Amino acid sequence: MGAAKFIRGLVRRIDPERLTVVVNTGDDESFYGLHVSPDLDTVTYTLAGVVNRAQGWGLVDESFSVLPALERFYGKPWFGLGDRDLATHLYRTDRMRQGVRLTEITAEIARAFKVKSRIIPMSDDPVRTFVKLRGLAALPFQEYFVRRRARGVVEKIELRGIERARPTGEALDSIQKSAAIILAPSNPIVSLGPILQLAGVREALRKAKSRVAAISPIVGGKTIKGPADKMLRGLGIQVSPLGVAQLYRDIVGLFIVDNIDRKFIAPIERLGMRAIATDTIMTTPARAAALASVVLRALEV
Amino acid sequence: MGAAKFIRGLVRRIDPERLTVVVNTGDDESFYGLHVSPDLDTVTYTLAGVVNRAQGWGLVDESFSVLPALERFYGKPWFGLGDRDLATHLYRTDRMRQGVRLTEITAEIARAFKVKSRIIPMSDDPVRTFVKLRGLAALPFQEYFVRRRARGVVEKIELRGIERARPTGEALDSIQKSAAIILAPSNPIVSLGPILQLAGVREALRKAKSRVAAISPIVGGKTIKGPADKMLRGLGIQVSPLGVAQLYRDIVGLFIVDNIDRKFIAPIERLGMRAIATDTIMTTPARAAALASVVLRALEV
Repeated sequence: MGAAKFIRGLVRRIDPERLTVVVNTGDDESFYGLHVSPDLDTVTYTLAGVVNRAQGWGLVDESFSVLPALERFYGKPWFGLGDRDLATHLYRTDRMRQGVRLTEITAEIARAFKVKSRIIPMSDDPVRTFVKLRGLAALPFQEYFVRRRARGVVEKIELRGIERARPTGEALDSIQKSAAIILAPSNPIVSLGPILQLAGVREALRKAKSRVAAISPIVGGKTIKGPADKMLRGLGIQVSPLGVAQLYRDIVGLFIVDNIDRKFIAPIERLGMRAIATDTIMTTPARAAALASVVLRALEV
Repeated sequence: MGAAKFIRGLVRRIDPERLTVVVNTGDDESFYGLHVSPDLDTVTYTLAGVVNRAQGWGLVDESFSVLPALERFYGKPWFGLGDRDLATHLYRTDRMRQGVRLTEITAEIARAFKVKSRIIPMSDDPVRTFVKLRGLAALPFQEYFVRRRARGVVEKIELRGIERARPTGEALDSIQKSAAIILAPSNPIVSLGPILQLAGVREALRKAKSRVAAISPIVGGKTIKGPADKMLRGLGIQVSPLGVAQLYRDIVGLFIVDNIDRKFIAPIERLGMRAIATDTIMTTPARAAALASVVLRALEV
């Protein structure tokens, strides 16, 4: 998750209390009757310093005792749920059943993990990302991403429920009031896409355009991790920083490309935004922090 | 749980496939949004040979990773839920939310544990046992039994929901059709009491009286384990096999007392039932099997 790496760098440069993270919930899924929010959890665990960094999801020092015991009832598991991670899903599900908003529950979970930043789900309403692969019916995102390991040719992304879902007031507020808004180097289709397609979000970002930066998730023609490149290709979008910048042309004032993609600066600037190149490969928190510094400086924060 | 020990002995004497166990659900409780059925699980785990015998509940070779992780959200836990045990509760809860009857779910869980006997919850409707202690408001059973370790003077037992709850057809059927019915040496108030108070159960047992045996849970003036003696005392019932036999006088044809309680045989027989004495202390499965043999023989099974 490029966003997690970037956030880890960002909180080395700004007071974590000043940070608000608006998070995709389109890849939420129900497992064993539990509401699992993979992106919310990764952001929460990252900001709490307890994420399993090698893995990119879940908790450090995790055990897996419950999952094999579920096999007796459900057959072979394909989605990794650690024991301590499960406690988070139990709590979230319990609170949702009590009618509490996901936004409030997310804040409770963040507090329980002593996270100082605000973590906001994009919506309290359900949105479910489905991936249509060539020759197959549309699959829920986690089935595509985890079970199938993102294999197959992506023909279409469906965001079921997106028309009825409203962004949270907290999410819109944060766009309106933040000194700077950074679209993390995340998948523009399935991570940022759902957020941007919620009614009112794109309009709010358009108004904030001069304060909005985006970091290209495509470096040297591919993604560092994850299937964004294959998705873009499947959807007929150029797999380059320019292809991504085109998706954001109305909402982004500053576009960050990697040093090896300097050639895209001029074409991106012709879209009506500033573009700069820097080192965007976040192999260490220090390098992620350096990237954050460049972005913040360019946004004059 | 006297019932579990007895069942363990019983299946050494009869084909497990011939056994049906009707189980109390009055001490079911919701923990962390999960539906926990302690008595059903103890019976299932016992018949599957995976119960933690030293403890009397839960699974053998259990780990406890999830419970401490829940503390972050819920405060200090007081009810033991092992990781593998939790898988059972997850499955039960998931299926209940899908609208499946507890009876059906219980059978699914038993099958998953390869149990050959039938395990039937007394009702698919919720009944919740509350214990009124002197000087305190009524507590849910598990709070009294586990959290308070059964301390305090019992003034009253409330079986909330008992008037509306119906026994399952499967439970009534098993009473009508079984060659022998044995009331295990369980707590007559909170374990057998809820079953007996369901509309129609007592009537069905009355008709079956000659086939019904009961084993006294009181031996030498006290219970082997659990708070039955304190409860009987609190409710003004004589803490003796006779006191228990009086509770069952209309439904039991054969009453089993321990050898040290021979003096109660004559008074119990005056209630209109046969009574015999034998060794009822089930310190080993072999002794439990010997007890089962005595009961089965006396019932001419």
